[in-house]
Amino acid sequence: MRDLVEIGMGRTARRAYNLDDIEIVPSRRTRSSKVVSTGWKIDAYQFDLPLVTHPTDAIVSPGSAVAVGELGGLGVLNAEGLWARQPNVEDAMFRIVQAAEDTDDPTALVRVLQEMHAAPIRIDLISEAIRQVREAGVTVAARVSPQHAAELTPDLLAAGVEILVVQGTIVSAEHVARDEAPLDLKDFIGGLDVPVIAGGVGDYRTAMHLMRTGAAGVIVGHGYSPGVTSTDRVLGIGVPMATAIIDAAAARRDYLDETGGRYVHVLADGGISCSGDIAKAVACGADAVMLGAPLAAATEAPGQGLYWTSAAAHPSLPRSRVAAGPDYAVDLKTLLFGPSSDAEGAVNLFGALRRALAKTGYSDLKEFQKVGLTVRG
Amino acid sequence: MRDLVEIGMGRTARRAYNLDDIEIVPSRRTRSSKVVSTGWKIDAYQFDLPLVTHPTDAIVSPGSAVAVGELGGLGVLNAEGLWARQPNVEDAMFRIVQAAEDTDDPTALVRVLQEMHAAPIRIDLISEAIRQVREAGVTVAARVSPQHAAELTPDLLAAGVEILVVQGTIVSAEHVARDEAPLDLKDFIGGLDVPVIAGGVGDYRTAMHLMRTGAAGVIVGHGYSPGVTSTDRVLGIGVPMATAIIDAAAARRDYLDETGGRYVHVLADGGISCSGDIAKAVACGADAVMLGAPLAAATEAPGQGLYWTSAAAHPSLPRSRVAAGPDYAVDLKTLLFGPSSDAEGAVNLFGALRRALAKTGYSDLKEFQKVGLTVRG
Amino acid sequence: MRDLVEIGMGRTARRAYNLDDIEIVPSRRTRSSKVVSTGWKIDAYQFDLPLVTHPTDAIVSPGSAVAVGELGGLGVLNAEGLWARQPNVEDAMFRIVQAAEDTDDPTALVRVLQEMHAAPIRIDLISEAIRQVREAGVTVAARVSPQHAAELTPDLLAAGVEILVVQGTIVSAEHVARDEAPLDLKDFIGGLDVPVIAGGVGDYRTAMHLMRTGAAGVIVGHGYSPGVTSTDRVLGIGVPMATAIIDAAAARRDYLDETGGRYVHVLADGGISCSGDIAKAVACGADAVMLGAPLAAATEAPGQGLYWTSAAAHPSLPRSRVAAGPDYAVDLKTLLFGPSSDAEGAVNLFGALRRALAKTGYSDLKEFQKVGLTVRG
Amino acid sequence: MRDLVEIGMGRTARRAYNLDDIEIVPSRRTRSSKVVSTGWKIDAYQFDLPLVTHPTDAIVSPGSAVAVGELGGLGVLNAEGLWARQPNVEDAMFRIVQAAEDTDDPTALVRVLQEMHAAPIRIDLISEAIRQVREAGVTVAARVSPQHAAELTPDLLAAGVEILVVQGTIVSAEHVARDEAPLDLKDFIGGLDVPVIAGGVGDYRTAMHLMRTGAAGVIVGHGYSPGVTSTDRVLGIGVPMATAIIDAAAARRDYLDETGGRYVHVLADGGISCSGDIAKAVACGADAVMLGAPLAAATEAPGQGLYWTSAAAHPSLPRSRVAAGPDYAVDLKTLLFGPSSDAEGAVNLFGALRRALAKTGYSDLKEFQKVGLTVRG
Repeated sequence: MRDLVEIGMGRTARRAYNLDDIEIVPSRRTRSSKVVSTGWKIDAYQFDLPLVTHPTDAIVSPGSAVAVGELGGLGVLNAEGLWARQPNVEDAMFRIVQAAEDTDDPTALVRVLQEMHAAPIRIDLISEAIRQVREAGVTVAARVSPQHAAELTPDLLAAGVEILVVQGTIVSAEHVARDEAPLDLKDFIGGLDVPVIAGGVGDYRTAMHLMRTGAAGVIVGHGYSPGVTSTDRVLGIGVPMATAIIDAAAARRDYLDETGGRYVHVLADGGISCSGDIAKAVACGADAVMLGAPLAAATEAPGQGLYWTSAAAHPSLPRSRVAAGPDYAVDLKTLLFGPSSDAEGAVNLFGALRRALAKTGYSDLKEFQKVGLTVRG
Repeated sequence: MRDLVEIGMGRTARRAYNLDDIEIVPSRRTRSSKVVSTGWKIDAYQFDLPLVTHPTDAIVSPGSAVAVGELGGLGVLNAEGLWARQPNVEDAMFRIVQAAEDTDDPTALVRVLQEMHAAPIRIDLISEAIRQVREAGVTVAARVSPQHAAELTPDLLAAGVEILVVQGTIVSAEHVARDEAPLDLKDFIGGLDVPVIAGGVGDYRTAMHLMRTGAAGVIVGHGYSPGVTSTDRVLGIGVPMATAIIDAAAARRDYLDETGGRYVHVLADGGISCSGDIAKAVACGADAVMLGAPLAAATEAPGQGLYWTSAAAHPSLPRSRVAAGPDYAVDLKTLLFGPSSDAEGAVNLFGALRRALAKTGYSDLKEFQKVGLTVRG
Repeated sequence: MRDLVEIGMGRTARRAYNLDDIEIVPSRRTRSSKVVSTGWKIDAYQFDLPLVTHPTDAIVSPGSAVAVGELGGLGVLNAEGLWARQPNVEDAMFRIVQAAEDTDDPTALVRVLQEMHAAPIRIDLISEAIRQVREAGVTVAARVSPQHAAELTPDLLAAGVEILVVQGTIVSAEHVARDEAPLDLKDFIGGLDVPVIAGGVGDYRTAMHLMRTGAAGVIVGHGYSPGVTSTDRVLGIGVPMATAIIDAAAARRDYLDETGGRYVHVLADGGISCSGDIAKAVACGADAVMLGAPLAAATEAPGQGLYWTSAAAHPSLPRSRVAAGPDYAVDLKTLLFGPSSDAEGAVNLFGALRRALAKTGYSDLKEFQKVGLTVRG
Repeated sequence: MRDLVEIGMGRTARRAYNLDDIEIVPSRRTRSSKVVSTGWKIDAYQFDLPLVTHPTDAIVSPGSAVAVGELGGLGVLNAEGLWARQPNVEDAMFRIVQAAEDTDDPTALVRVLQEMHAAPIRIDLISEAIRQVREAGVTVAARVSPQHAAELTPDLLAAGVEILVVQGTIVSAEHVARDEAPLDLKDFIGGLDVPVIAGGVGDYRTAMHLMRTGAAGVIVGHGYSPGVTSTDRVLGIGVPMATAIIDAAAARRDYLDETGGRYVHVLADGGISCSGDIAKAVACGADAVMLGAPLAAATEAPGQGLYWTSAAAHPSLPRSRVAAGPDYAVDLKTLLFGPSSDAEGAVNLFGALRRALAKTGYSDLKEFQKVGLTVRG
C-alpha cells in the first residue's frame, strides 16, 4: 500500500524520495571487484558500462561520443542542438564560454544559447556529425524531440543512427493538440527498424504507456541534476528520482508479465551528481544511467567544464541552470575508471559502481537492483 | 482523517505543508499549450490570467494597475497606502529607495515607510488614483483594512471601485473589541453592490465564516513571501500555504453544497516566489493568486525592484522584510508572458503556468486543481 | 498515546519538537489588542508581563533588574556571578567585552569569564546588589545553584530576596553523591518562607518531582538559545522545548489534580530568540518565559550586546557559546513594548505577544495555552 | 516491528538515524560526577576510558599511542600505514602538511598520501614502531586489513601486539573472490591467542556474522566523521550510526543468549565529532568509541591538526575528505579531561561523558546504554 499523507482536508499526496534521501545498506558477504560485472544490453547492443550520455552539446560532440563508445558506454548526440544548427560549433562554444564568464549578467549564457538555437536545423550538418561517430565503429545514437521526430528520423537513420532517443521534458504516449498532428509514438516506433529509447517519464502510469508503445527503453526523469536544472521552480513539476525509478521498475515488471517476456529497459536521467548516485539509481532499479553534469569534468567535453541541459535553450521558457564542473578536468577514461585523487565521487565513476557491488556482495547490475535501502530518519 | 501528531503529552498538532514541500506529478497524456486556458471569472468580471496583485505600493501604482489589467489580470490599489496619503508619491518613493540603500541601518527603510504612513488618508488623493485606473477602461479594485472599511468604502465606490478588497493580516467575520464598533462583515457586504474579496484566512473554519458573510472571494494567507515577510518570527503565527489553500478549497466545496450552488473564489496570497509556486497554488485549489514579490522585477513597479507588504508600515510592529527583486528588470508583459532567459521561474510567470497545465494534460485551471501531488519524503 | 519510533532493533525513541518546528494557527474571531491581558501571578507576586530574566550577568545588573521590574517583569540576579565575586564589575565587563573582540581566539572570552568566576563569592557584594534592587521597590529575585543553595540562601533572604530561583543545568529533586550532602530540595523549600522557582527540567517525570518538592514554579529547559548555548554538542543531552513545555504543563495538570488545587507555574527557559517564540512557548503551556539572548539588545544590559549563560563560566566544561545581540541597541522599554522598526521579532517583544493573542482571539495567557498548533510537514 | 516505508511501488526502505538525529533525555535523579565510572574491559584488558583510536597515521604515532594508553584508552597503530612504509615518517608528514596548504589543488594532499602508501610494507619498520609502544608498558594494538591479515599478523604478534584490529571499509565473515583465497575470519581468529576486534559492519546480520567468528569486539561504521569522510558520495553506501549501533547491540544481546554468555563488545567508529556524540554512541549501546577527527586537535597528533582516514590513501578510489582540526591545539590530556574553554564539545571529551552520565543519573557505561532518547520531530 502506498505511503499517502493527508496534506489538507480531503487531499492526499504521496511521499516521494530523491536519491539524496536514501542510502544503500550492505548486509551480505563481500565480493572481489574482479568478479563483478557492470555490463548491460539493450536490443542487440551490448555495453560494458550502464552509461548513456544525456544528449547535451555541453558534453557530447562527435569526438566525445566516440570516446564514450570506446570506453564501453553510449554517447547520444543531440540532433536538434548546435551540431545540427551551427556550421562552426567551435566558434559557437567560444561565445558560450565567454558569456558564462560574464558574472554580472546571469542570463547572458542562456541568451547566447537561445540565439544559437534559433538557427534552423540543417540535415547536412547533423548527418556529418553522425557520420563521424559511425566511422569510428561505435554504436551510434541521436536524440530528437517528439515535435521533430517524424520529420528528422528518416535522415538520421540514413546517416547511420542505430539507436534513436526520443526525448522531451515529458513525453507521453499520446498528446492532445488542436492544429498540429501530434506524434503517435506507437505508430512511429512500429514503423522503425531501430530500437527507440523514449522519455522522460515520472510515474508508473506514464512509464507503462511508453512501454506499450514498443520502446526498447524508457527514460525516467527530465535530466534534473542537483544544482543544474530547476524545473520545479519553473513549472512546479517534480520527479523525485528514487521513487520514480522504483515506480518505472514496477511498470517494467508488470509489462514483462503482461507481455509474457518483453523486458523494457529503465534509464535514470536526473538527480545524479556523483558516483554514489549512480549506485543508488541502479539500486532503485535502473538498468542504466543517463549522465549529464558529472561528465562535464572530462577534458573531451565540448563545454569546457560548463554544463546545461537541452531545455536551457528553450526560446521562451528555459529550464536549466548552467553549472560549472569541478575545478580540475580529467580525461574521460580517468573520469570513468580512475584512478582518482578526489574523495567526493566525482572521478572513477564506474570503478566506484563496481566497488559498491562488490562491497554489498552482488555480482551484476540486475542482482544489485535488490540491495537493501534505508531512508534518512 | 487528519494527519495529527502528539507533540507532547496530551497535545496534538496537525502536520501542515508549504508550497515548497510539495511537487506536481504528471501522470496523464500531455497537451499543446495552445489548447489550454488560464482564464477565470469572479462575479461578472472575466480575466485571462488568475492574477490579482497584492495591494502594496511597492508594485501597484495607478499606472501599473492599468498595465496589469490590460494584460489580463487585476491590479489592486492600496487605498490606505502612499497614494492615499502622500501628495507626491514620486518624492516619497525616492526617499524609500534611498533608505533601502543605507545598508548600515537595516531598519532605515521601515522607519521611512512608517513615517510616510503616519500622514492621514486623503480621500481626494486616493480618489484621483482610482480615477486614473478607471479611465483606462480596466477593472478597478482597491483594498481597505477592516478598521477603515466602513469609513472609506463609500468614497472609493464613488470614485469608481468595482471590486473591493477587505484585507487585514487576519480577518475574521466577527471581532471582539471594547470601545470601538468592529466591522460586521456580513452587514457590510450585504449593504454593497460590488463584489468583495476578503481575507486573509488560514484555516477551514475561518474560510467558511468569511464565505458565509457573502464575500465573492476569500484570500488565503497573509502575503507571506519567502524571504520577504516574517510573521512567524514576530507573532509565531503561521499559514502553511499548501495546507491552507487545500482547506479553503474544502470550505468552498462545503459552502457550495450548503448553499446549493454559491461558488466563492479562493485567492492564494503568500508563499509564492516563482512561476512553479503559482502552478502549485492552483494545483492545491486556488482560483487565482495574489502576486507580490515576483512582480517587483517589473519595470512598471513603483518600488523600483524593492518589495514590502502593507504590514511593513505598521507603526509599532512592522511585519515584513524588505526584499530586492532580481538584479535585472523586465517589462511587465515579458514578466508575465516571456520570453525568458532566466531558468529560476522569475520571468514568463503565466507562460510557465500554461505550460505546466499542458505538460500534465489539463485544459483549464479548475481541472488542474485535481492534479496529483507528492510531498518530499 | 506517545509518538514513538523504532530507531533501531528493539529500541524506541520519542519524537520531540522544538519551538521552531511548530506554528500557531488562528481559527477564532479576532479581538482588539486592548482587551487582552498578558498578566500573570506567582504566589503573592503579580506581574504585567510573563517575563522573568535568565539569571546571567550579561543582561542582569541591579540597574537592569530594577528596569525590568518597573516595566512589569521580574529580573533575577545571579547570586553566584560577577556581582557576587567582583568588587568592580565595570572593570570585569570591560575585560570581557575586550576578549570578545579578539576574533582570533574564539575561546578568549570564555577564559576571561572562567577567570572572573574563579574569585570567591562574597556575601557583602551580592547583598549590596540585592539591596539596590530592593530599594527601588520592585520584586527582588536571585538565583543560586543547587550546590550553594543551602549555604547562600540565609544571607540572600536577609538582604531582601523575595523570590528564590534554584537553577542548575539540570536539577532533580534528589541527587546521588558519595561524599557531599546533596541538597534535599523538599526539605530546603519546606524551611523557607519565600516562593522558590526551581529547574531546569526536561520531561514530565522530573517536572513532577520538582512540583512535589513544593516549588512555586518549575523551569523547563536549560537556557539554550538558538546560536548561543550548545549543550547538545557537549553532553548529547537535549530538551526540545515545545515538547518539554507541553510535558511540564501535563505534569502541572496532574499535580493540580493530585493535590486538589496546587498550581505550580511553568517557566520556559530556552529556545526563544524572537517575539514569535515567546508566543509559541505560552501556546505550549508556559505561564512565563525566562528571557536571555533577546534582552541583550537592551541598552540597559551590562554585557553591551554580548550574551552568555551562566554555564559559560564553568571551570572545566563550559556549555555556552557567546553571541552578540543585534547590531543596534534600543532601550528596554522599546525592546519590550515598541515601537519597532525591525521585522524579525527582535523589538516590541511583548507588544507582539499581545497582538498574537488578539489575532487568535484569546483574552489572556491561560486561555492562549489552548490555541491550535501545526507542525511542519 | 521495524519502521519501514514504501519509497516506491513494491519497494520498502527502513528509516535509519544518525547520531545527529537523536538526543539524550534526562529523566532520573542526578548524580555526582565523582560516583560515575567510565571504565570498560575487553578480554583481559581493562581501560579507564571507552576510547580506542581510529587507526590513522593522522593521529596515531607510537608516541601518541603511548600517550593514549597512559591516559586510559587504547591507541591502535595502522600496520599498513606510513609507519609501516616510510623509513622517515617525519619527512612524509612534512610533505603531507605542505600539500594540505596548497589550497589551489584540493586533491594534492590525497595524491601525496597515495604516493606515500605506494611504498611496500616493511616488517622491520612496523615492528620497531610496535616495540616503542610495548616498551612504554601500555596495551599494544595494531590494525591490519582483511587482505593482509594472514600475511602480517605473525610478525605483528612477534613484535608485541596484544590486541589485533582487523578493519576494512566493510568486513564480512566470508568473502567471494575468483583468484585469491579470501580471509576466513573464523579460522583466522581461532588460530590466534590474542583478542581480535573486527569491522566495520553496518547492520545486525553482518554484526552477528562477525560475532560468530569469535571476534572479541565488533566495529560498527566505517570511520565516517561528519565533514571528513564521504563514502556516501562515492559508493552510495551509508551507515546511519545511531541505528547501526543499536542493531549491533541487538546482535550482541542475541549472540549472548545464543552462546549462553559470550559478550562481544561493540565499538562505534563514525559519526562522532564532539563529546556529545560520544555520549550518544554509548547511549545507543556502544561499549567504546573509536575516535578519529576529534583527536586531531591534540598536540601529540602526528598530522598537526589534519585528519584523514586510512581510506584516504586508496590508490584508485579514495574515500575520505581531509579535514583540519580546530584552530587551536591542546595537549591530549586536556583534550580528554579538560579543563576546557571551548563550548562546542571539542575539549574535555571524557569529562563531558562523565558529566552526561551524572546528569542523567547513571553510574556506569553499561547502565547508560538504557538512557531515554528522542528524535527530532
